[in-house]
Amino acid sequence: MINIQDIQEAKQRLNGIITDTPIAYAPILSKNAQADIYLKKENLQLTGSFKLRGAFNKIAKLSKEERDRGVVAASAGNHAQGLAFSAKHFKCDATIVMPEATPLLKVNGVKRYGANVVLHGSNYDEAYQYAQDLVTKEHKIFVHPFADDDVIAGQGTLALEILENIDNIDVVIVPIGGGGLISGMATAIKHIKPSVKVIGVVASGAKAMKNSFESKKQLNSKSVRTIADGIAVRDVTPKMLDYVLDLVDEVIEVDDTEIAAAILFLLEQHKLVVEGAGATGVAAVMHNKIDMNGKKIVLPLSGGNIDVTMLAQIIQKGLVKSARKMNLVVTLIDKPGSLKTLTNIFEQISANIIQIDFDRNSVALAFGDANVTIALETKGEEHQESIRSELSKAGYKFTEV
Amino acid sequence: MINIQDIQEAKQRLNGIITDTPIAYAPILSKNAQADIYLKKENLQLTGSFKLRGAFNKIAKLSKEERDRGVVAASAGNHAQGLAFSAKHFKCDATIVMPEATPLLKVNGVKRYGANVVLHGSNYDEAYQYAQDLVTKEHKIFVHPFADDDVIAGQGTLALEILENIDNIDVVIVPIGGGGLISGMATAIKHIKPSVKVIGVVASGAKAMKNSFESKKQLNSKSVRTIADGIAVRDVTPKMLDYVLDLVDEVIEVDDTEIAAAILFLLEQHKLVVEGAGATGVAAVMHNKIDMNGKKIVLPLSGGNIDVTMLAQIIQKGLVKSARKMNLVVTLIDKPGSLKTLTNIFEQISANIIQIDFDRNSVALAFGDANVTIALETKGEEHQESIRSELSKAGYKFTEV
Repeated sequence: MINIQDIQEAKQRLNGIITDTPIAYAPILSKNAQADIYLKKENLQLTGSFKLRGAFNKIAKLSKEERDRGVVAASAGNHAQGLAFSAKHFKCDATIVMPEATPLLKVNGVKRYGANVVLHGSNYDEAYQYAQDLVTKEHKIFVHPFADDDVIAGQGTLALEILENIDNIDVVIVPIGGGGLISGMATAIKHIKPSVKVIGVVASGAKAMKNSFESKKQLNSKSVRTIADGIAVRDVTPKMLDYVLDLVDEVIEVDDTEIAAAILFLLEQHKLVVEGAGATGVAAVMHNKIDMNGKKIVLPLSGGNIDVTMLAQIIQKGLVKSARKMNLVVTLIDKPGSLKTLTNIFEQISANIIQIDFDRNSVALAFGDANVTIALETKGEEHQESIRSELSKAGYKFTEV
Repeated sequence: MINIQDIQEAKQRLNGIITDTPIAYAPILSKNAQADIYLKKENLQLTGSFKLRGAFNKIAKLSKEERDRGVVAASAGNHAQGLAFSAKHFKCDATIVMPEATPLLKVNGVKRYGANVVLHGSNYDEAYQYAQDLVTKEHKIFVHPFADDDVIAGQGTLALEILENIDNIDVVIVPIGGGGLISGMATAIKHIKPSVKVIGVVASGAKAMKNSFESKKQLNSKSVRTIADGIAVRDVTPKMLDYVLDLVDEVIEVDDTEIAAAILFLLEQHKLVVEGAGATGVAAVMHNKIDMNGKKIVLPLSGGNIDVTMLAQIIQKGLVKSARKMNLVVTLIDKPGSLKTLTNIFEQISANIIQIDFDRNSVALAFGDANVTIALETKGEEHQESIRSELSKAGYKFTEV
């Protein structure tokens, strides 16, 4: 296990290379929680996540001879970018193995730093195995995404920056996937200010570490499924479970709907793109997962690498959930003018039509009826209520979808 | 006209209240432009934009008696939020007049700070007139969004922060709407470091200031239309034209497509939500609007208040433009199995189907034909080219939409 000195030395190595990412007060979250909530904006880190810290520390500690052999990792995500960036800095050869179906954007995100990308296997396990083969055959240095003390020490530097900038912290909520970030951070926190409670947060769709923490033994998941791909880890590594059992006070969970709401909140209120894993702490606060009253709570937004297609989906679903969009199926009598009568109602009530679809062929319809599927831009719950009431008053049958 | 002392005094007033927003190097922009590009992340300012600076300085300079009368403004945007925040700080009554059709989100964004919101008029001019009436009838203090020296001095503080943090700047590119930000910033820059070139950027759909600058006389627009609503100003104010003619070196323009590409770039590469106006500088750099070779260029990202619905649209259109999404209409023979044959092709070539629509009723179709409209997730231009070639090889007629 690492100690505080390992982390302080890692900080020296990272000095002047990485960004000391901003910390800011979150007024709306604080007001709603009756607490003081701070965000550590690690999504603004170079390469878009904290993973750079651990990867950089790892390569910095390699000998010249080891660096000459080159490093290898299996990852299509933040670890890959962090390692590629660090390898470039040390003019060290880096090979990143990714599953074959990896989107081009992620491949290019790593190639940009000059790393070699090998597409191999139909899933992470096959890519991981291939990376191990490169270690055996080509004597490359394998850099594990979390179960490596030099990597863990690097991640711990995030906690040092937080403790240097904010006094009297009561709680830090840290996302858990493999457990590298929370192990490093908790090591620093429990040494420097043991009164700070360290709470881990997992995604409900990938809760092996929560189950293992609670039963104090390794319990792997059969499968994982969450929009927080950065913490979608199926198996618990014994080494990491030891760290978490030793240093972490509590492990909580948030589900994908809660994570999506947090991502949308951070986009709208903080102008930040945060990936699912990075938004779990905010999700926990927004959905009252812990006792917060009067406490000073710090949430590291661990990364920002989210696919923009996913972001667009989260926005669309979030708008429906927060009553700013409404999808209706209205049954009309299929005759000239009946659509106009309906759209008149929407105009009068200032509901903007953003999509419309007309169907009179469905077998579920009575003869002479037609269904109109309409997406409306609305101004909130009250506005939607008056739309419902106007439609009912005018005698329309409708459902919301 | 203001001088450097007005701006330095404004900075004293703002100290400890506003955020000293981060400045960061932009590696990809720099590499592509063969220049050193820095982003001043003013979208992370409290209230989401620089407008807070001017509004705060204005209220700070009012006498106790004036503050007791209360302030009024006509704005549905950044000025409204900046003023509401500042009025709350000084425990001063604030009334914000907005056009009736203003989205609830913008109304709530201002109400959150305790300001009174009056919805009046069908457009900005009518709201503005109503605000003027409140000045006459209720003796409130009108706070103009830009044509006010105290407001201009406040905006100038953004330049002081930039000059304190970065040496040897060659160029600063500043968005122009009414001209308040560039007038304040240029005053500071031309006093402290006159060698820095100050370039203004307008949206092509709202280029009154560019036309006026070039012809050295006031030329208003008939109408404005741009996604950069923060700089969608129709009329040029003579006072502001004087500032711009006196202090600005050049005015350039970017169109909505270029602005949208910049917004998407900032989302993906910098994890930042930036509104249209705030992304104009990045748009100018991305589309080579100025001579950049070897220069050190600073781009203030002036604000982040963009509607998330607009953001979702920009993402969708941006994906098509950057070849990561492809919309096809393919003509099929309308018989069992023909759709399966087509989807087999997409599977073999790893193109993910994200939407599909089947139509055999269109009058434009030959009897026995059907049209399938398909949206595909693709991996770039090369991937799209091979999809086209596979479809042609299999004998399909198709168009891209």
